[in-house]
Amino acid sequence: MTALPDWLTQVPLGAALDYAAVVVFALTGALVASRQQLDLVGFIFIAALTAVGGGTLRDLLIGRDTVFWVGNPTYVLIAAGAAVVVFFTAHLLESRYRALLWLDAWALAVAVPAGVAVTMRLEHGPVIVLIMGVVTGTFGGLMRDVVCNEVPLVLKQGELYLTCAFAGAASALIANAAGLDRLSALLICGAVTFILRAGSLRFGWKLPVYKARPPRQY
Amino acid sequence: MTALPDWLTQVPLGAALDYAAVVVFALTGALVASRQQLDLVGFIFIAALTAVGGGTLRDLLIGRDTVFWVGNPTYVLIAAGAAVVVFFTAHLLESRYRALLWLDAWALAVAVPAGVAVTMRLEHGPVIVLIMGVVTGTFGGLMRDVVCNEVPLVLKQGELYLTCAFAGAASALIANAAGLDRLSALLICGAVTFILRAGSLRFGWKLPVYKARPPRQY
Amino acid sequence: MTALPDWLTQVPLGAALDYAAVVVFALTGALVASRQQLDLVGFIFIAALTAVGGGTLRDLLIGRDTVFWVGNPTYVLIAAGAAVVVFFTAHLLESRYRALLWLDAWALAVAVPAGVAVTMRLEHGPVIVLIMGVVTGTFGGLMRDVVCNEVPLVLKQGELYLTCAFAGAASALIANAAGLDRLSALLICGAVTFILRAGSLRFGWKLPVYKARPPRQY
Repeated sequence: MTALPDWLTQVPLGAALDYAAVVVFALTGALVASRQQLDLVGFIFIAALTAVGGGTLRDLLIGRDTVFWVGNPTYVLIAAGAAVVVFFTAHLLESRYRALLWLDAWALAVAVPAGVAVTMRLEHGPVIVLIMGVVTGTFGGLMRDVVCNEVPLVLKQGELYLTCAFAGAASALIANAAGLDRLSALLICGAVTFILRAGSLRFGWKLPVYKARPPRQY
Repeated sequence: MTALPDWLTQVPLGAALDYAAVVVFALTGALVASRQQLDLVGFIFIAALTAVGGGTLRDLLIGRDTVFWVGNPTYVLIAAGAAVVVFFTAHLLESRYRALLWLDAWALAVAVPAGVAVTMRLEHGPVIVLIMGVVTGTFGGLMRDVVCNEVPLVLKQGELYLTCAFAGAASALIANAAGLDRLSALLICGAVTFILRAGSLRFGWKLPVYKARPPRQY
Repeated sequence: MTALPDWLTQVPLGAALDYAAVVVFALTGALVASRQQLDLVGFIFIAALTAVGGGTLRDLLIGRDTVFWVGNPTYVLIAAGAAVVVFFTAHLLESRYRALLWLDAWALAVAVPAGVAVTMRLEHGPVIVLIMGVVTGTFGGLMRDVVCNEVPLVLKQGELYLTCAFAGAASALIANAAGLDRLSALLICGAVTFILRAGSLRFGWKLPVYKARPPRQY
C-alpha cells in the first residue's frame, strides 16, 4: 500500500542519509586534497576524515554503543571509492573550488537530517536533536578544513553556513511537533538547509555580522 | 548547622563549577567570534564549543555514561545566552582582547576545579585527576583557538598558562591528601590557578623557556 | 621451549608496543615544543598529547571500556619524563628538525603495529584493523602539528607518510591471513612501515601527486 519501493523501506532512514552524506562529503574532502596536491592515499585519508568525522563525533557524544562506521565499514570503503574517482577526474572540472562549495552544500543538506534522524530515534530531547543535526552537518567539513589549513567554511564572513544547519534542524523539530511523519520532517529539514545555503552562495543571503567600532586614532 | 545556604548544597559541587565554567568560557568564545566578525549563529557556535569542549573531552576520556551537557542541555542554552549578550554588548568594551584574556583567566580558575571535582568523585587516582583538571581547563580554549585560527593561549611564549592549570590541580590533590574537605581543596585549586595566571598577565611571571643555540653562521 | 625472554611474554604485545610508541612520540612532541620555545610544562603537554593522542582516538572509536592511559597512567608519566629529558638535552642535537623527522618515522613504525595489535585482539574485521593501525600511527602527530601550527606531516607533498602506515597495516593483515603468528605479523608491519618511510626520507620515494591543469592565462 506504500508508495515507497521495497529497498528504501528496508534501510533505516538514518542509515540511508548517513550513506548519502558520506559519499558527498568524501567528494568534498577529495577536492580539498586536490587543492593540497596530495597523493592517492592522502585523497583517501582526507575524504574519509571528512565523510565520517561529523557522524563519528555525534555517535561518541550521544553514547551510541558502536560508532556507525566501526559497526559497518562499508561507509569508509565508499568514501575511499569516492576519493579514487576524484583523484582521476578532478582535472575535468571547470572550477574545483566552485564544485567544492556546491558539493559541500549538498553534503550539509544530507548530513543535517542524518544527524537529526539518528538522534530522534534514540529519543533525545529537542535541544540535543538540534545540536546533533548541526554537529553531524558541520564537523566533518570543519575537521577537513582545520587539518588542511583552509579557512573553515563555518567562519566565512558574509555567508550563511552554520545558520543553514541550525535552521534545517529546527525546521525538522517544528515539523515533528506539528505532527508530520518522520520522512516528511527530514525532507523539510534537508530542503531548508539546502535552500538557505544555495541562496547564500548564489544570491549572497547573509545575517548581519558583528561590527566593532572603527579603531580609534592615536 | 552548616554555614552554606541551602541552594548551594543541593547542586553537586562538580555540576555547580561546570555551570560557572560554561558561562565564562562561553563569553571568551563569543569575544573571539567578535574578533572574527561572525554573525549571531557563529557567536553561538564558537561560544558553545569553547564552553563545553574541555568538559566533553574529560567525560569521553573517563568514560562517563553520559556527557554532562547531553544529559542536561541547560549548559548549552546558557552558553548560547552568553553569546547573544556578547553579540550586542562587546562594542562597549574598552579593549576586547584584554577582556578576553581576563575572562579566560577566570574560566581557567573555575574549569580546573570543575575537572578535578568530577574526576575525584569517580574515584580516579591522582595522576588522572591532575590530567582531567588540566584537560577540562584548557581544551575548550584550545579548540576555540584552533578553529578560529588564533595562536592558542597554551602556546604563548613567556606566559604561564598550562602551568597555572597544572599547579592548581596539584594543589587540590595536596590539600586533599592533607585531609582538607573537598570544598576547601577546590577553593584552593581555583585560587592557585587564578593567582598564577593573574600574576603572569599583570606582572609577567613566567618559567624559563627552551632556548636553542643561536643559529650557526654559514 | 620458547626463545622469548620471560619478561617479554608477560606484557601483552599490544601494551608493549603502546609503551614504545608513547616514548618515541613523546620525544617528537617535545622537539616540536622546542621549536615553539615553550617552557617545561608546555613540553610535557605537547609530548603527552602527541604520545597518547592516536591511541586515545583508537580506544574511543573501537569502544574500549577504558582508554589505555586512563586505566594505567604510567604511559603519561613516561611521556612526561621523555619531555623533561628533551627540555634539557635538545640543544645537543646537530639538527632538531632531522631528529624530529627520524624519531617520527620510528614512532610511526611502532604505533601502527600497536594499533593493529589492539584492534585484532578485539576481533574486529580487517578494514577496521587497517583503519585503527593508520589512526594510531598518525593522529598523535597530526594533533601535535595542528595545535602547534606546523604543516602536518600527513600533508607534506612528495613524501610517503600515510602510505607507509597503510602499507604497514595491510602487510600485517596479509601476513595474518597467510597463517603467520601474531608476533611475526606485527614485526612485518613495523618493518614495512619503517622501510617505506625511511626510503622516502633518504631516497625521496614517493607516489605521484595530483596535478591540476596549469592555471589558464587570462
